[in-house]
Amino acid sequence: MAILPPGVDAGRFAAAIRRFEEIVGPEWVFTSDEDLHPYRDHFSYLKDQPNEPIPSAAVGPDRVEQVQDIVRAANEFRIPLYAISTGKNFAYGGPAPNVRGSVTVDLKRMNRVLEVDDKRHFALVEPGVSYIDLYDYIQERGLKVWIDTPDPGWGSPVGNALDHGIGYTLGFYRDHFGAHCGMEVVLPNGELMRTGMGAMPSAKTWQEYRHGYGPDPAGLFAQGNFGIVTKMGFRLMPQPEHWRNGLITVPKRRDLIPLIETVNYMTDLFMIGEPWYGSPLRQLMGNTEFREAAGRFDEEEMDRQAAAARLHSWQVELQFYGSERTTLANWEYAKELVARAVPQARFTDGESLPVPLTKEQIHETTGPYPTNMRRNVTQGVPGLGIWYMTGRSEMNPNAWDETHVGLFSAVPRSGEGVLEAQQVFARIARDLEIPSFNNALGTPVNWYQFTFLMGAGFGIPRDYTPEGKKRAADILRRILEENAKHGYGDYRAPPILQDDVADQYSFNDHVLRRFHETLKNAIDPNGVVSPGRGGIWPAAYSSFRGALRG
Amino acid sequence: MAILPPGVDAGRFAAAIRRFEEIVGPEWVFTSDEDLHPYRDHFSYLKDQPNEPIPSAAVGPDRVEQVQDIVRAANEFRIPLYAISTGKNFAYGGPAPNVRGSVTVDLKRMNRVLEVDDKRHFALVEPGVSYIDLYDYIQERGLKVWIDTPDPGWGSPVGNALDHGIGYTLGFYRDHFGAHCGMEVVLPNGELMRTGMGAMPSAKTWQEYRHGYGPDPAGLFAQGNFGIVTKMGFRLMPQPEHWRNGLITVPKRRDLIPLIETVNYMTDLFMIGEPWYGSPLRQLMGNTEFREAAGRFDEEEMDRQAAAARLHSWQVELQFYGSERTTLANWEYAKELVARAVPQARFTDGESLPVPLTKEQIHETTGPYPTNMRRNVTQGVPGLGIWYMTGRSEMNPNAWDETHVGLFSAVPRSGEGVLEAQQVFARIARDLEIPSFNNALGTPVNWYQFTFLMGAGFGIPRDYTPEGKKRAADILRRILEENAKHGYGDYRAPPILQDDVADQYSFNDHVLRRFHETLKNAIDPNGVVSPGRGGIWPAAYSSFRGALRG
Repeated sequence: MAILPPGVDAGRFAAAIRRFEEIVGPEWVFTSDEDLHPYRDHFSYLKDQPNEPIPSAAVGPDRVEQVQDIVRAANEFRIPLYAISTGKNFAYGGPAPNVRGSVTVDLKRMNRVLEVDDKRHFALVEPGVSYIDLYDYIQERGLKVWIDTPDPGWGSPVGNALDHGIGYTLGFYRDHFGAHCGMEVVLPNGELMRTGMGAMPSAKTWQEYRHGYGPDPAGLFAQGNFGIVTKMGFRLMPQPEHWRNGLITVPKRRDLIPLIETVNYMTDLFMIGEPWYGSPLRQLMGNTEFREAAGRFDEEEMDRQAAAARLHSWQVELQFYGSERTTLANWEYAKELVARAVPQARFTDGESLPVPLTKEQIHETTGPYPTNMRRNVTQGVPGLGIWYMTGRSEMNPNAWDETHVGLFSAVPRSGEGVLEAQQVFARIARDLEIPSFNNALGTPVNWYQFTFLMGAGFGIPRDYTPEGKKRAADILRRILEENAKHGYGDYRAPPILQDDVADQYSFNDHVLRRFHETLKNAIDPNGVVSPGRGGIWPAAYSSFRGALRG
Repeated sequence: MAILPPGVDAGRFAAAIRRFEEIVGPEWVFTSDEDLHPYRDHFSYLKDQPNEPIPSAAVGPDRVEQVQDIVRAANEFRIPLYAISTGKNFAYGGPAPNVRGSVTVDLKRMNRVLEVDDKRHFALVEPGVSYIDLYDYIQERGLKVWIDTPDPGWGSPVGNALDHGIGYTLGFYRDHFGAHCGMEVVLPNGELMRTGMGAMPSAKTWQEYRHGYGPDPAGLFAQGNFGIVTKMGFRLMPQPEHWRNGLITVPKRRDLIPLIETVNYMTDLFMIGEPWYGSPLRQLMGNTEFREAAGRFDEEEMDRQAAAARLHSWQVELQFYGSERTTLANWEYAKELVARAVPQARFTDGESLPVPLTKEQIHETTGPYPTNMRRNVTQGVPGLGIWYMTGRSEMNPNAWDETHVGLFSAVPRSGEGVLEAQQVFARIARDLEIPSFNNALGTPVNWYQFTFLMGAGFGIPRDYTPEGKKRAADILRRILEENAKHGYGDYRAPPILQDDVADQYSFNDHVLRRFHETLKNAIDPNGVVSPGRGGIWPAAYSSFRGALRG
């Protein structure tokens, strides 16, 4: 065995492995290099480096009691665990742990859809269930509820929600953690806890009333290490009868301000699904004159060139859910509202389709890429097509995501906020001497209903050697620091950057992190559950803070 | 000084009071019986009893630093604090603490509206701000946002949200804690912490992105005692241009099932505001024959008598927000949906009004009571009119709320669930030998979007002597126990019942409470912040659990 948990000798580790084998059966404990290969992050700049966070073993429990026994054994043998669900976690570190030598608790076998109610609109699932599994379960039974799926759909509703992941339907449901209702957790001492109404043994409303009685600790179990979640309930959107979309464009740069203001009104009245912003001017970026004006943020010149090219500066696509008539009334109202705010706006009716889509509609393509990919996710249909567009692969060697790290920062949900963030991001790129492209046309994603996230959109130099990857990661770290100086906070990070992101949330000498670490030490004195996750280091592993930086 | 904090002698108490006077100024420290009179629960059955939870003093800080100093002094002198905001907290124990002799930290002076943004739709307020204050602030500035107010509106958005309180507009906003975004808390050690994006010092999105980075401890600060919240952000609903309502009735008892199913669909698509259920048959309860049939839950007979009286069995009033046309389209769609599910349903168009209402519309009355009270709260207009209807007063001596204790339990959000809960509640009343009236016509409140709450609706014998009040409270305790056996959990309770409610959330030997108490002891080793609140007793006060029962 090449890798051992920190501070654990071969004898103790062998004893722990034997215990794990007793718990789950020897066929579900993995220790060979070959078996552990899938539990590494093959995109990581630490790949094959001495501090690459490779697990020492992986254990695959099939039921809650086994998870409890694994946690109890980890306490007895002082072994750090790292729990994962299903999916690939690309761009956020894959399955690799925060601490080299951790034992990965792989929950893929716990893949039961425990309940779906299409009259009260909820689901209760285990961590190994994927969005695709849940969708299939619903389709097979003809249930009239939608899931809200991220893209790709191979991930776990439990895992995704616990990472504060998102989707593409109505705002409430797009916040996957926000739309959860009730969870079951194995605590670091092995005890089983249920939140919300799950704390009442005979309750029939575990997935209906979220707060339960007294404080609700549920938020602690996301992006952290306070326990291993073994069941989670989710509110589901009822399947509407009709879906419609429409495209709005506005001519000038400053029109972004009234456009966003008007869309915010519609969003917060829950009249529309995810608004999808973009800029028709991206096609002018090949033009040197325009690109230079954009680089200077010369609004008048950009407007002049846009007008000469007969292009509008911004666009937003809106989604409507309801009946044929109510979606039409809402779309007509949307046009009226935007026309009031921006008289030169243009409107293009989109599709208007009865729901559910037919199999043909779901799978139709009109080019090399599945063009209906976007439509599918606005209707909760999970897919894997996104890899055609954004994944780095042999097929697509020029994909943007060189370091394979997602970096999205919260910026104010206003046109002013977006226009300012574009300039700040450009300045940061200049200061860091990295290319900054398209920044003057950068638009936010409105995945979270009340939040704009903007991808950094930096062109980090490509260099796939270990040193090149390290440099790229260092640049990401500096971007995080610079972003934070301007108040732009990253919402999610892979283990290699979790300490760096947590460092930026530093109000009052990092009191939030200190508070969490006080709680962590109280409920996990041996620090066995996912030490370091979310930047929270229990006392037993505090010397490991920042170890993945080196 | 008649009352001292537990275990504190007169000398130490006097020293603590001097310290509090140094912190807030002597004019804001209250110790006389007269000054402490408003900090007692004058409706409590413990009134004037030896264990009545009267504070030993009250302190009125004006700013956050004073709250921090008060908490630090409480640690030094080992004084239990009890924090309150503003409003009356009627039916939930008023301002009285869980521990007799606590020092009340009255946050009323911290009444600043710090920010209201009517383009990004949020507010940031201090605990002393009332719904009426916030409404007035918005009106005075002509801002185009609504608040979601409980009824009455004199309470605090911060305090109400922290008690899991509710309102009457769109579902997302009705859950006041769920609609919060970012809080600032004085921790039990006196440190100041901010959740969400507030943890990033320069963040501009504290009220826009709720989760921040890492775990979110915000849920711990509701119905508990993990800190004193000094600022809280709330998402606000944009002011729609139009409001409309409509009434739907269905003839037969079992029609409640498809009616609720259809309304759930509309609710969860965010097409409607709070659906308001009721029964037109209440007027038949004066009729002996009908009342007896209802007592037997004889559905056929009740349906027969309803038909003979030309009355429908159930009704629901729906609220629509948008434009004149979109609210009409949605109301027409609602009728179509219900007619499909219950062909004999009847529909009555309600009001259709441009928003905002005029001052005349807000204040118009057509009888002794303000009949527009309901309309006002569906549009976020706070008022006090509800006391005309439900309060126990000289004007209204027969009000139902004898013990002045709110008791609402979560039941499944389905017709089957409601019809079953009616019978269970009736059986419990019979077993406890208390009158049960109207139970066969009991309808849920859908304050929380995904939850039905049903008031116990028991006729607890009136006896305003201390013994009679005690008996009434004992009956309430037994109701809680019996409800829990059937899985119906109370969502909110006054201090005199908090231990009893917490007792019912007992999954795995009360693991949720034990988890909370472990956290509490870790962050509040002296147990100074609101010991006992939510049933959570720190080690220093653990002997007080249940002390208000005796």
